Amino acid sequence: MGNPQTIWFNPEKNRVETIDQRYLPFQNSIVEICSLDEARFAITDMIVRGAPLIGVTAAYGMYLAARNCMADFQTEMLRAAEWLKSSRPTAVNLAFAVDEAFALISDQLSDAENTRLLLEYAENLKQREIDFSKKIGLAGLELIQEISLRKNGEPVQLLTHCNAGRLACVELGTATAPIYLAHEAGIPIHVWVDETRPRNQGARLTAWELAEAGIPHTVIPDNTGGHLMQHQLVDLVIVGSDRTTMNGDVANKIGTYLKALAAADNGIPFYVALPSTTIDWSLNDGIREIPIEQRDGREVSVMEGLLNNEVHEFRMIPEKNPVANYGFDVTPARLVTGLITERGVCKASREGILSLFPEKQKQ
Amino acid sequence: MGNPQTIWFNPEKNRVETIDQRYLPFQNSIVEICSLDEARFAITDMIVRGAPLIGVTAAYGMYLAARNCMADFQTEMLRAAEWLKSSRPTAVNLAFAVDEAFALISDQLSDAENTRLLLEYAENLKQREIDFSKKIGLAGLELIQEISLRKNGEPVQLLTHCNAGRLACVELGTATAPIYLAHEAGIPIHVWVDETRPRNQGARLTAWELAEAGIPHTVIPDNTGGHLMQHQLVDLVIVGSDRTTMNGDVANKIGTYLKALAAADNGIPFYVALPSTTIDWSLNDGIREIPIEQRDGREVSVMEGLLNNEVHEFRMIPEKNPVANYGFDVTPARLVTGLITERGVCKASREGILSLFPEKQKQ
Repeated sequence: MGNPQTIWFNPEKNRVETIDQRYLPFQNSIVEICSLDEARFAITDMIVRGAPLIGVTAAYGMYLAARNCMADFQTEMLRAAEWLKSSRPTAVNLAFAVDEAFALISDQLSDAENTRLLLEYAENLKQREIDFSKKIGLAGLELIQEISLRKNGEPVQLLTHCNAGRLACVELGTATAPIYLAHEAGIPIHVWVDETRPRNQGARLTAWELAEAGIPHTVIPDNTGGHLMQHQLVDLVIVGSDRTTMNGDVANKIGTYLKALAAADNGIPFYVALPSTTIDWSLNDGIREIPIEQRDGREVSVMEGLLNNEVHEFRMIPEKNPVANYGFDVTPARLVTGLITERGVCKASREGILSLFPEKQKQ
Repeated sequence: MGNPQTIWFNPEKNRVETIDQRYLPFQNSIVEICSLDEARFAITDMIVRGAPLIGVTAAYGMYLAARNCMADFQTEMLRAAEWLKSSRPTAVNLAFAVDEAFALISDQLSDAENTRLLLEYAENLKQREIDFSKKIGLAGLELIQEISLRKNGEPVQLLTHCNAGRLACVELGTATAPIYLAHEAGIPIHVWVDETRPRNQGARLTAWELAEAGIPHTVIPDNTGGHLMQHQLVDLVIVGSDRTTMNGDVANKIGTYLKALAAADNGIPFYVALPSTTIDWSLNDGIREIPIEQRDGREVSVMEGLLNNEVHEFRMIPEKNPVANYGFDVTPARLVTGLITERGVCKASREGILSLFPEKQKQ
C-alpha cells in the first residue's frame, strides 16, 4: 500500500479528503473538502498545516472552485486565487501553487477542460511533493549515516521543532524524511521532539507520527533544547521551513531561531529540510521581508486535552491576561549549517542555492 | 499594610502559612505548614517555589522540626537538615538556609532556647530577603530609568522568564522588583511574560502578579522571545536565578539560556536579579557543576486548566509518548550583561562579584 498519505482526491465521491490535524493525537478523523470555501477553511483553521500540504490543499481548492463555478469562469477563478492566497501569509507554497494553477487556465479551453487541467495540476503537485520528500530523505539520510558511523552505532540524537513530518506534507515529510529513512535503514536513532507551543504540533503531531512508525523519541518542552545541546545530548537538528529566501534565511515555526542559536553556540549542525517549492525566489532578507502571521490569542490561552478520555478545550491563561501569538520566526542564514533539498544539500546562501538551482540565476 | 507577602509565621496559631502556588491563578488559597514534613512537602510539591522562598520555607522547616522534636534534639535536627536539603537540588538558598540554621544550634542551650533561635533565624532570613528584594529593585530601577529616558517616555519593553516575582520571594521579588518600583515611579513599562513550560510559572504566577499590580503585560509562548528581540520589541531582559556561581554562570528555569542567546545575538541587555543568598561561593563552572533537577514527566504531559470554571487536570500528551522534564539550565556568564544584587549591579564574573562582596575573597 506504500506510505500513508495526508491528503487525497476521492474520485468515487468526487471530493478531496484529508486527515483532520486539529484533533490528533486524541482523535484521528477524516475531513471532506468539497468546495473552495472548505479548502480555505481547512487552511485557516489548520485542519491542514505545513507549507507543502498547504500548497497541495490550495491547488485542490482551485480545482474545487473551478468545478463548482456557476458564474464567469475567469472572474470566479481570479477571485478564488485571491481568496486562497489571503488565507495564511507566511508559507510561500500557498501563493506558488495558486499562481501556478491559475496560470494554466486558458480562455482557449472550455471550463470543463480548464477544470480537468486544475485537477491534474493538483495531483501532479501532490506527486511532486511526494518525490521531493523522498529525495530530501535520501540526502538527509547521508548526514545521519555519517554521524552514526562516528558514534559507532550509539543512537544518533536528533532534535526537531514543530511538525515537518508527513502530516505537513503528503508522505514522509521534510525534516522527518531522513529520520524515517534512517529508521528503515536500521540506523539507531532517537528524536527529541520539541512540544512547539502554542499549538503543540511537536507533542501532538510529530510525536504521534514517530510513535506510529515505532521510532524512539522523547517529547520535551520548547525550553529544553539549549540544555540538551550544552550537554552534548543532540547530534543534529533538522527542522522544516515555511519560506526560505534566496540568501538562505529560514522562516519556520516560532522558536526555531532560538534552537538555531543554541546549535551554533554548541557547534551542533543545524539543517533545514525543504522542497524548492518553499524557496521564495523573490526575497533576500528574511527578517525584514517575510510576513509573520499573528494568530488568535486563544491558541495560547486555551488548549485541548483529555479529561476522562474525552477531548475538551480548557483555559490555561485567565482572560484578564493579554496574550500574543506570533506564528513564525526567521532564522538568519548564518545560523543554518545547510539546506536539504530535493536536489541535495547546499549551503544556506545565494551561491549555495543557485549551485543546486542554476535555472533561477536570472530571475 | 505594606506589600503583600508570600509566607508568614502565624503566632496565634503557632504555624507557618503560605500561598498555595500550585493552583494560582485559578484558586488563591493559603496552606498551613505545621511540621518538618509539611515544609518539605511544600518545597517538593512546589506549593512554594523560587530560590529565596524555598530558603525561607526551609528555615521555617528547621524551626518546626525543633518545635516538634520528641527525641534527641541534635540527632533529630541533623536528620531534619539532611531531609530538607534533599528536597530540591538546584536552588542553593535551600542548603544555605538550612546550614546557617543548623550552625546556630548549641548544646550549651536548652532545646527550647535552640528552638526559639531557629524561629528567630527564619524570621530574620525572611526579613533579609525582603530587604534584598527592595535593594535589588532600586538597583534595577536605575537601568529601567536610563532606558526610559532614551525612549522619551515610550514604554520600556521588558521580558522575563518564569516567576522571579514576589511569589518566588517574600515581597517584590528579584527580577520583578525593578518592574514594580518602575511602575510605582510612574515609568511607562510593558512586560513580555514567557509562559514558561512545563509548569507555566510565567503564565500562571508572573502574569497573575502583574495583573494584580496593574502592570501592562502580555503572555507569550516561550518560543516567541527571539522573534521579538529580532524586531527590537524588547529593551531589557531581567530574569532571576536559582543558583549563580562565583564566575557568574547562572542556573535558572529551563529556557533562560535560549533567551540569553537571543539577547546577545540582538544586542539587548540581559540582566539577572538575585540576592547574594543565591550565589554559590564554592562553585565556578555552572554548566559542569550545578546539578540540574529532573522532575516528573507528568508535569509535561498533564496540565491544569479551567473547564466550566472548575480546575481540572488534562492530559495533553498521550501516555505512549515518552517525555523529559529538566527543571533548569545554565546561562554562561559571557551571555549575562550584569547581575543585579542587593549591593548593586556588577559584571557576571569573579571580579565583578568580588567587587561587591569583597569579604568572600578568601573563601
